[in-house]
Amino acid sequence: MARIVLNVIYDHPTDPQAFEAYYADTHMPIAERIPDVERLVLLKALPGADGAPAPWYRTAQIFFADAARMEAAMASPEAQAAVADLANFATGGVRVVVAEVV
Amino acid sequence: MARIVLNVIYDHPTDPQAFEAYYADTHMPIAERIPDVERLVLLKALPGADGAPAPWYRTAQIFFADAARMEAAMASPEAQAAVADLANFATGGVRVVVAEVV
Repeated sequence: MARIVLNVIYDHPTDPQAFEAYYADTHMPIAERIPDVERLVLLKALPGADGAPAPWYRTAQIFFADAARMEAAMASPEAQAAVADLANFATGGVRVVVAEVV
Repeated sequence: MARIVLNVIYDHPTDPQAFEAYYADTHMPIAERIPDVERLVLLKALPGADGAPAPWYRTAQIFFADAARMEAAMASPEAQAAVADLANFATGGVRVVVAEVV
């Protein structure tokens, strides 16, 4: 089975400074307890070269060895706590896109 | 300066089989000549758990050490050749989103 990445896409929050503080100090310590994560890549989108706003705010890419491991990890109490915490800071909304590494 | 990723986001092509063949056999050998690339991650988006179609088809994530190196690399003849090749297979269109690793 292919490696899998769960992309957590954060749309622009109402207060980016408050988002950044909560994300670093509170959310990441919770999210880092999700089991079986192979690699975590945190990205902050930049505006376009033409000055167009970035199409989203941040992406967290959570890599797992395969889909079965991702599903088991995301069903864990640790992942459920991270998901439940989103409502506390993700004021722009969150989308999830799962992708295979191929 | 922060590490930088250039995300090349391919929307759904009219003929995915033709896209895959051209992408693997022709486009990647051209794109792999882009200089100063630290890491390349090729992703294929999956449909949602509810059966919703994936919001895009593929993403190529091209990592560079910093923005200056990305800009120099993308101005190279090798990158220009890769960009010019997109019209030969990216029938669904292409969007580019640059992000910082932070």
